Amino acid sequence: MLPPMARINENYRKLRAGYLFPEIGRRVRAFQESHPQARLIRLGIGDVTLPLAPAVAEAFARAAREMATPEGFRGYPPDQGYDFLLDAIRKGDFEARGVSLDADEIFVSDGAKCDSGNLQEIFGLECSFAVSDPVYPVYVDANVMAGRTGAAGDDGRFAGITYLPATEANGFMPGPPRQRVDLVYLCSPNNPTGAVATRTQLAEWVAWARTNDAVIVFDAAYEAYVTDPALPRSIYEIEGAKECAIEMRSFSKRAGFTGVRCAYTVVPKTLTGSTASGERVPLHALWARRQTTKFNGVSYPVQRAAAAVYTPEGLEQTAAQIAYYMENARRVREGLSAAGFTVFGGVNAPYVWMRTPKGLGSWAFFDRLLAEAHVVGTPGAGFGPSGEGYLRLSAFNARENVDEAVARIRRSFSAG
Amino acid sequence: MLPPMARINENYRKLRAGYLFPEIGRRVRAFQESHPQARLIRLGIGDVTLPLAPAVAEAFARAAREMATPEGFRGYPPDQGYDFLLDAIRKGDFEARGVSLDADEIFVSDGAKCDSGNLQEIFGLECSFAVSDPVYPVYVDANVMAGRTGAAGDDGRFAGITYLPATEANGFMPGPPRQRVDLVYLCSPNNPTGAVATRTQLAEWVAWARTNDAVIVFDAAYEAYVTDPALPRSIYEIEGAKECAIEMRSFSKRAGFTGVRCAYTVVPKTLTGSTASGERVPLHALWARRQTTKFNGVSYPVQRAAAAVYTPEGLEQTAAQIAYYMENARRVREGLSAAGFTVFGGVNAPYVWMRTPKGLGSWAFFDRLLAEAHVVGTPGAGFGPSGEGYLRLSAFNARENVDEAVARIRRSFSAG
Repeated sequence: MLPPMARINENYRKLRAGYLFPEIGRRVRAFQESHPQARLIRLGIGDVTLPLAPAVAEAFARAAREMATPEGFRGYPPDQGYDFLLDAIRKGDFEARGVSLDADEIFVSDGAKCDSGNLQEIFGLECSFAVSDPVYPVYVDANVMAGRTGAAGDDGRFAGITYLPATEANGFMPGPPRQRVDLVYLCSPNNPTGAVATRTQLAEWVAWARTNDAVIVFDAAYEAYVTDPALPRSIYEIEGAKECAIEMRSFSKRAGFTGVRCAYTVVPKTLTGSTASGERVPLHALWARRQTTKFNGVSYPVQRAAAAVYTPEGLEQTAAQIAYYMENARRVREGLSAAGFTVFGGVNAPYVWMRTPKGLGSWAFFDRLLAEAHVVGTPGAGFGPSGEGYLRLSAFNARENVDEAVARIRRSFSAG
Repeated sequence: MLPPMARINENYRKLRAGYLFPEIGRRVRAFQESHPQARLIRLGIGDVTLPLAPAVAEAFARAAREMATPEGFRGYPPDQGYDFLLDAIRKGDFEARGVSLDADEIFVSDGAKCDSGNLQEIFGLECSFAVSDPVYPVYVDANVMAGRTGAAGDDGRFAGITYLPATEANGFMPGPPRQRVDLVYLCSPNNPTGAVATRTQLAEWVAWARTNDAVIVFDAAYEAYVTDPALPRSIYEIEGAKECAIEMRSFSKRAGFTGVRCAYTVVPKTLTGSTASGERVPLHALWARRQTTKFNGVSYPVQRAAAAVYTPEGLEQTAAQIAYYMENARRVREGLSAAGFTVFGGVNAPYVWMRTPKGLGSWAFFDRLLAEAHVVGTPGAGFGPSGEGYLRLSAFNARENVDEAVARIRRSFSAG
């Protein structure tokens, strides 16, 4: 028998060697070291590039200075966020679209990635769940780490997860599964495919969740990129969603906050889960408990910066940033399309989902794109087996880089 | 049979009704509403009160403005923190005290509370653990939520946890347990008792951990309040600790960052846990994976603010803040002591641990202190059953409030 030792969480060993983006980082660094002259254009990791809007930076800096004054100093933030931010969110993001929420249904956090990873904690380990394939890796990895899955197969899929293939055939927006699942993660506008759920599609999901007593975790981190006014930006625009859905939002892509860190999650008070004996328990109370126990709120100046997004100047300046990125997306989409490549997304989302030419595998195309065009994309297979044969290109870059990247791809690869 | 439903994590139901500080908040609000004229003095929740040091606020504001420029904008922060901050920490907090760490053994985060709560995730659910009693509630609650305990008994203790009573008899600094545990949480300077582990005591813990192949989670959030130069500020000042200990630090109490949010955790690369089959696995890799998967780093301006703590001006200004609070602590300690009360702590820690007069229970004394002296303390019993009969008073307030609170306590209660 082995002597007693502090045991590790062996679920971590089921994870693939590296999180997708660190792996990309390693390949890019290796290439850059062996080709120091190459001028790389990064359309890989979805990080914004435009500077912070002046109205936002101004509010941020002012609040930082305020903290050095006896009147303006603030200690621990309120558990769910400052009222000034909760109210701005409630009115600006929901009331303006006909959705009524209470301010205390909103939980401000330091990132949608954190909330994506942490939300599973309030559910039982026996909960079954579904994700689309390809998928933002955090939903899966957080559940693997918690022990809700078996081992990964050769295709990278974990035993015990229901995968919903997002394919050209279903417009990259799969419908509800036939088999029972307790939880489903939906992301719209979608990362990585750039597809957006229509009102009809979301209504189908809500109806399914209510019929099946399931919970939808709806990731709307990219809602600001929806340009078609007929498309929903919040799942709560669908009748009944407050009884079955949690929604995550972020300032990262909407206002260039990837380096500022602010997001929020909505847990309606009408949403419940159940105990083994069938008692209904509000998920709101569980998430409140999780957050008050293991989180201490968001920096006051950061919350002031986020609130400035909702001022007239903030709205105007951030809308201009989004328009800039969306013009980038249009150029990628139309430039590659005109050259004969098959591309998806990029209309209501900052991501273009490109079919790899000549049937190349995702990583093979990634490597060739890096070596031959000096362009960094994100291999679709990194998001799941149904992403094989695709590459994600992001619109987050300077206009001239985007144009140059498209030109290089066209030069290096024929669409074949 | 019940129909299938999304199940909640029922471990949450084992937790007591409220986290300690929200409960105090509720009682204080209720009193304030029924006594709107009462001028309360809050020595309860350990929140700082002095404004941010000018050097810190200046760096914070400057970095916020920098983010609005094309040259100065920063997106996602590096996984573990910016080099400028990691280097400042490595040199200022460790090298200066003879401890050599690699920069990548340091993980910058948004709070020691978060790290305290999250660290348990990298260990197996079967790990046994010990905490002192009284104890900072997060260590316990995070493990309860993860399912490492049974239910709470009438005394508030959870089945399956080894509690180490911190009493007057052991100077509130218990030694290693006789029974096997895999993990132990140590906090020195201690919250709530204000006791500090000596070098000899820490060496005993390190020797125990190495002999027993156990891991120490060492919470040094209050190390800046150590005034006695003979006392260790880091567990790594003890030979062998890098083989058995994780250390958490925070800028919250050291530089008034409760509303700014920055902390860090050290996981030495030499520290391992084991798999069921006895394979040794570096905990560093597991924590790195946890953080890169479920966390996205700390705001760039916040990291600049933290780095400014290490500049000559920052060091001088924050040292003055700490000296101010410690003079408060001295006045509480000596004022109550002179009046015949029995008090502990407050010499190398910002907390004074006061024995309740007349054998009053902690919450009874809390309520009477609130009602009669209009002073808010923290009931010792809120930190665990061995805290019964004590009350925590914090030194974080304005000098005149502290003096007034001491005078009121002396007026309202005889020491008896």
